[in-house]
Amino acid sequence: MSSKIRVAVDAMGGDFAPGNEIDGAILALNEKGSEIEIILTGKESLLKDELSKRNYTGSGIKIVNADEVVTMEDSPTESYKNKPNSSLVISLDVQKKGEADATISAGNTGAMMAASVLKLGRIKGVGRPSIGALFPHDNGSTMLFDVGASVDCKAQHLLEYGVMGSVYMNQVLGINNPSVGLLNVGEEKSKGNELTFEAYELLEKSGLNFIGNVEGRDILAGTVDVIVCDGFVGNIILKFAESVPSTLKQKFIKYAAENVFKKVWVGMMYKTLKKLLSDFDYQNVGGVPLLGVNGVSIIGHGKSTPLAIKNMIFTAVNVIKSGVNQKIADSLAK
Amino acid sequence: MSSKIRVAVDAMGGDFAPGNEIDGAILALNEKGSEIEIILTGKESLLKDELSKRNYTGSGIKIVNADEVVTMEDSPTESYKNKPNSSLVISLDVQKKGEADATISAGNTGAMMAASVLKLGRIKGVGRPSIGALFPHDNGSTMLFDVGASVDCKAQHLLEYGVMGSVYMNQVLGINNPSVGLLNVGEEKSKGNELTFEAYELLEKSGLNFIGNVEGRDILAGTVDVIVCDGFVGNIILKFAESVPSTLKQKFIKYAAENVFKKVWVGMMYKTLKKLLSDFDYQNVGGVPLLGVNGVSIIGHGKSTPLAIKNMIFTAVNVIKSGVNQKIADSLAK
Repeated sequence: MSSKIRVAVDAMGGDFAPGNEIDGAILALNEKGSEIEIILTGKESLLKDELSKRNYTGSGIKIVNADEVVTMEDSPTESYKNKPNSSLVISLDVQKKGEADATISAGNTGAMMAASVLKLGRIKGVGRPSIGALFPHDNGSTMLFDVGASVDCKAQHLLEYGVMGSVYMNQVLGINNPSVGLLNVGEEKSKGNELTFEAYELLEKSGLNFIGNVEGRDILAGTVDVIVCDGFVGNIILKFAESVPSTLKQKFIKYAAENVFKKVWVGMMYKTLKKLLSDFDYQNVGGVPLLGVNGVSIIGHGKSTPLAIKNMIFTAVNVIKSGVNQKIADSLAK
Repeated sequence: MSSKIRVAVDAMGGDFAPGNEIDGAILALNEKGSEIEIILTGKESLLKDELSKRNYTGSGIKIVNADEVVTMEDSPTESYKNKPNSSLVISLDVQKKGEADATISAGNTGAMMAASVLKLGRIKGVGRPSIGALFPHDNGSTMLFDVGASVDCKAQHLLEYGVMGSVYMNQVLGINNPSVGLLNVGEEKSKGNELTFEAYELLEKSGLNFIGNVEGRDILAGTVDVIVCDGFVGNIILKFAESVPSTLKQKFIKYAAENVFKKVWVGMMYKTLKKLLSDFDYQNVGGVPLLGVNGVSIIGHGKSTPLAIKNMIFTAVNVIKSGVNQKIADSLAK
């Protein structure tokens, strides 16, 4: 029997699967092989081929066959029914059977959310499992909940997001007494819509470190640790934010095209700009946990690099070690 | 009797009032003095002093005294009741009495919206007057409605925004058959919340050039001319977007502080970056009309420069000339 932490990796999930998934798994094992074990799910022959190409000789990787693949175009709920043998579902199966302690996937976010909830169930007291996005700032990150498109939230769900986000920021990212803000159109308590009025009351009485309403500008400003909002708003913000770097890059390219001098100049600037914009590539590194499910499920960006996959595996390990789920259950029981 | 277009300028509105307001008015008159007349509202003695400092010798400026000032902190609705002699309200008074054809203000947006609706009334068929924000892209601009924090919109209001936005883009910005998108969490018709499902049906049957759902990333991409959404979402998006340039500037400054070489390098890049980011300074130039009120009311950013004030005056002139309001009434009657 193994005392290592076992992480199931949906090896067919991301846009560059299975290459990046396998490379990321090997990176993780090279760094923490004494602590973790990886279970790759996907077409066995393909995965074996890819593994042998990489000359990985360790014993930290196990393969579990899965014949089907969930694509980014598949419907979240239908893929669960129609592709029961997908690498995504099989990963969660392995976890459900107790043969893995966590699952990570860089695949179809909606499908991973739906399958995780259906396979693993919800933590007692959680109405809506949720994924957040981490927006880095100078001294850390701000987590925005929900960005998983859980639309038509009720006030009670926003309260749950506040609780889950606080526990996560505290236990996994080490923030002491994380502050929680309610995303709104103004700072005054009198601002907002029916949902925010009700949520404000609940958050105020919650015992969380609730600092009141925050605005769109607070998401990047580092003024608050956890921001809660309806998944409709959060999803639109996230997609807008993700489009900022490419918009700026295009502006650069267009500017460069104006003349040869500018072309040289922009070429020189590009590397610096890319570094500065990398913070806007939310979810690119490390993935985010689906909070509220009865188990550890980490969701990453489809474009995850091997480094991002490695960090997702480490995020899974941190979430397991910190006992986030038990603490969420305890906090909600209060 | 004057055949010129008369624009009332709330001279005490913006963060740099009355200086920028007066400078902007003079810029406008220098360029189109044969066509326009300016009515400045504010403390008469102060405005006369400021005018005389500038050696303006033309006859295009009239002053109407207003003893009170609405501040950015004043409540929109209460300021209307409590400060009936504010420069903001007096400007609209002048317009209501038929002594001006339009009003512009760089002051408190909410107060300007509330006072405009109360003084000028609504166009027949409009439930919620709305302000949009123009997001520039490579080949023009995308207008997002509503960003004026008209929260808890109904589907009918989103339809009105589509109609008003289309008329504006067509009549004032010259876009032929403007496309209209519904801001949502996915492109598929099945995505969204109760509000978007209902609004989708109304927009589909509207006779507008409705292209279906669009996502957060479409706001900057130039893929659609008019995007409609609830004011709650639009306001949060606008404030988030407005925070992007300052966030990037801070990152630059921090990066530059790392060493002397970087400091020189960033100093050299800064001008180019500033130019590229200027497109993100929404509303900084030209202001946006409050659409749906029975008159022309243009609202600008508190930080409006003299150039921005000049452009707001010209926007007012364009809106008057193009007969936007009549066309909105006609379109809604259909």
